Amino acid sequence: MNNHVMPAAERKVRVDLGDRSYDILIGPGLIAAAGNEIASRLKGRKVAVITDENVGPRYLEPLMASLKQRDIEAVSLVLPAGEKTKSFEHLIPACEAILGARIERNDAVIALGGGVIGDLTGFAAGIVRRGSRFIQIPTSLLAQVDSSVGGKTGINSPHGKNLIGVFHQPDLVLADTDVLDTLSEREFRAGYAEVAKYGLIDKPDFFAWLEKNWQAVFSGGAARIEAIAVSCQAKADVVAADERENGLRALLNLGHTFGHALEAATEYDSARLVHGEGVAIGMVLAHQFSTRMNLASADDATRVEAHLRAVGLPTRMDEIPGSLPPAEKLMDAIAQDKKVKGGKLTFILTRGIGQSFVADDVPASEVLNFLREKHPQ
Amino acid sequence: MNNHVMPAAERKVRVDLGDRSYDILIGPGLIAAAGNEIASRLKGRKVAVITDENVGPRYLEPLMASLKQRDIEAVSLVLPAGEKTKSFEHLIPACEAILGARIERNDAVIALGGGVIGDLTGFAAGIVRRGSRFIQIPTSLLAQVDSSVGGKTGINSPHGKNLIGVFHQPDLVLADTDVLDTLSEREFRAGYAEVAKYGLIDKPDFFAWLEKNWQAVFSGGAARIEAIAVSCQAKADVVAADERENGLRALLNLGHTFGHALEAATEYDSARLVHGEGVAIGMVLAHQFSTRMNLASADDATRVEAHLRAVGLPTRMDEIPGSLPPAEKLMDAIAQDKKVKGGKLTFILTRGIGQSFVADDVPASEVLNFLREKHPQ
Ligand SMILES: NC(=O)c1ccc[n+]([C@@H]2O[C@H](COP(=O)([O-])OP(=O)(O)OC[C@H]3O[C@@H](n4cnc5c(N)ncnc54)[C@H](O)[C@@H]3O)[C@@H](O)[C@H]2O)c1
Ligand SMILES: NC(=O)c1ccc[n+]([C@@H]2O[C@H](COP(=O)([O-])OP(=O)(O)OC[C@H]3O[C@@H](n4cnc5c(N)ncnc54)[C@H](O)[C@@H]3O)[C@@H](O)[C@H]2O)c1
Ligand SMILES: [Zn+2]
Ligand SMILES: [Zn+2]
Repeated sequence: MNNHVMPAAERKVRVDLGDRSYDILIGPGLIAAAGNEIASRLKGRKVAVITDENVGPRYLEPLMASLKQRDIEAVSLVLPAGEKTKSFEHLIPACEAILGARIERNDAVIALGGGVIGDLTGFAAGIVRRGSRFIQIPTSLLAQVDSSVGGKTGINSPHGKNLIGVFHQPDLVLADTDVLDTLSEREFRAGYAEVAKYGLIDKPDFFAWLEKNWQAVFSGGAARIEAIAVSCQAKADVVAADERENGLRALLNLGHTFGHALEAATEYDSARLVHGEGVAIGMVLAHQFSTRMNLASADDATRVEAHLRAVGLPTRMDEIPGSLPPAEKLMDAIAQDKKVKGGKLTFILTRGIGQSFVADDVPASEVLNFLREKHPQ
Repeated sequence: MNNHVMPAAERKVRVDLGDRSYDILIGPGLIAAAGNEIASRLKGRKVAVITDENVGPRYLEPLMASLKQRDIEAVSLVLPAGEKTKSFEHLIPACEAILGARIERNDAVIALGGGVIGDLTGFAAGIVRRGSRFIQIPTSLLAQVDSSVGGKTGINSPHGKNLIGVFHQPDLVLADTDVLDTLSEREFRAGYAEVAKYGLIDKPDFFAWLEKNWQAVFSGGAARIEAIAVSCQAKADVVAADERENGLRALLNLGHTFGHALEAATEYDSARLVHGEGVAIGMVLAHQFSTRMNLASADDATRVEAHLRAVGLPTRMDEIPGSLPPAEKLMDAIAQDKKVKGGKLTFILTRGIGQSFVADDVPASEVLNFLREKHPQ
């Protein structure tokens, strides 16, 4: 039985995937409650926790204490923080740590951290013994609203971001909204870009709500929990409809084709650009490009840019510190991105706020001209 | 349309997995026909071929020529031969080679080689872009009758064999029976252990047929193709019934729990022991242990040993060159093997030839005593 009585503030979102369905719990104090939540769902009594050097010192001890209270044996591995950790170099010790802990079929692997730790740990859990149970404890806003839900895991390659990985759904997601208080302002904003994304994809009312309430979301409390729950529900709906990204799920990539190209162009150097910032710039570019293609009104693009700028996100390529490679190079990165079929470019475009769609016949030449305009040498 | 007219000798086995069903073609000349077979099934026109230093020099050129005839663009990567290649060290360049070739969703990755190349390449195909199309061209007997069919892929870890990997089904298997002529006698025998295994699992008539016809199987021609086709059909049936090894499929591990422990004990040194030899000794041990547990008659164990010895396979631990660790160490390796749930040992035991079953409550102490008896210090 589940001993954890859900506080009034706590929200639950169910990801509906048949016999692989799972819960996302969203609310305060969930790290302290982790032992209970896990014990009531897991048959085994062993876990391996993987975290990073920023999150570990803050939240590993309370997590371990909570697990111990329910007699769950835990080992932990602390990896360096940052995007570069999503590499074979760190995947290997992660796999060996899980195997060394003798995690068996009913035990679990836990990711305690942001999207980097979640993606890497989920991949390790997905390949150790050809798939081990996996629990996400996302600690960044981005991880809580996006990366911890849906089962996409992986690492980066010199050829591009997230090019190596598996689909491996978690068995449980615990989004402790308190821990966001120690997240840097910049990282919170970056995660907020993904929150806004759900509005821009197909929830114009949510976007309008964010325009009014973003300050409350930033300060914490009920508005923050509400924004995270709406985001998780949006992602859960898309994932349930299209687990393997054959169609609808591609909409979640709004802003990401441009964003990934910018991340590649800045060599995943988080001092210059973090994922959510790339997505913010990418979403503005996607709206502007849609305007240029006569699909959306210029007003909508302006409104998107205004809101993201208001919360403090970058919205233009020239806000990225340091120099960017020429448009042609950015185009190469786009062509090597996942969303290419037989040479044709697939893009998420929009007819206005909350009216995005998958366009699979975007001429590369148009994109290149647009990039040249936005980023003249 | 398929331009390849199936010669009289060629056999086809279908692996029935819904929309992931695929064909196994078995017969002479299939490498020369690969271009046709692949072109008629694949939408893309690009492949990355991964092979090893023994197989590459012999069969890479004819394969590339056959692909070229059908305008399939191919790049290749030649890795060292041997079990040690199933490691992260070689997985990384395999992934990078596939990405470097810009293999997209409709293109494919090809494994040309034995089980080592098949397992490694299948794993790489399974994780590049979270799953790429995959074609097996197995060149060892073991790979043709076992490892190329069923979608288990992976690499070894210092913690044990095959502990890291994914389930990733091929889209096509081309088993060219001619190439077995260049396989060493020792490797052919090792593969034959897996052929005999299908008889021992649940086909007593096939085992009896092998006892009479094994020499014809070794010399090639119709009997060889027949033995391979029966084996592939047996494996295909099990895989279709239990793709993810939740039940029935475990029977394919007959002899493998002991076998894997011996492989670990000899540090995967193929000079001392190859997989099929470990399986041969393991199957004899499984029958003897079943006799000891009063499940099977001693005559059956004797008959199994007599046949495997007749074909030239090792059947006893003391035939392995060099010294083995003590029984306690072998037991440790068994306990770290996959077939353990909550501390209890799961073993494939038998009630006689062709009457194997999954026993999930085998006392570890009995196994240890048995090992001490068979391998006194
Ligand atoms: N799998 C998916 O579906 C998916 C979706 C979107 C993004 N992603 C991936 O997620 C990654 C980005 O995630 P991210 O933005 O969380 O990056 P991150 O994991 O690097 O976290 C950002 C920074 O915040 C720190 N941090 C995290 N939680 C903290 C806390 N509570 N207090 C203090 N510091 C904390 C981290 O140590 C790190 O330095 C990218 O690699 C991206 O590709 C994956
Ligand atoms: N995935 C599965 O379901 C599964 C099942 C059984 C075994 N396996 C794995 O398969 C591996 C063993 O396979 P294997 O016995 O084929 O080993 P292997 O790939 O090492 O091949 C054996 C040797 O024969 C050589 N060789 C292969 N084909 C040849 C040919 N036609 N002519 C000349 N030389 C040739 C190879 O270079 C190698 O030296 C093990 O790693 C085992 O774990 C996997
Ligand atoms: Zn994102
Ligand atoms: Zn085997």
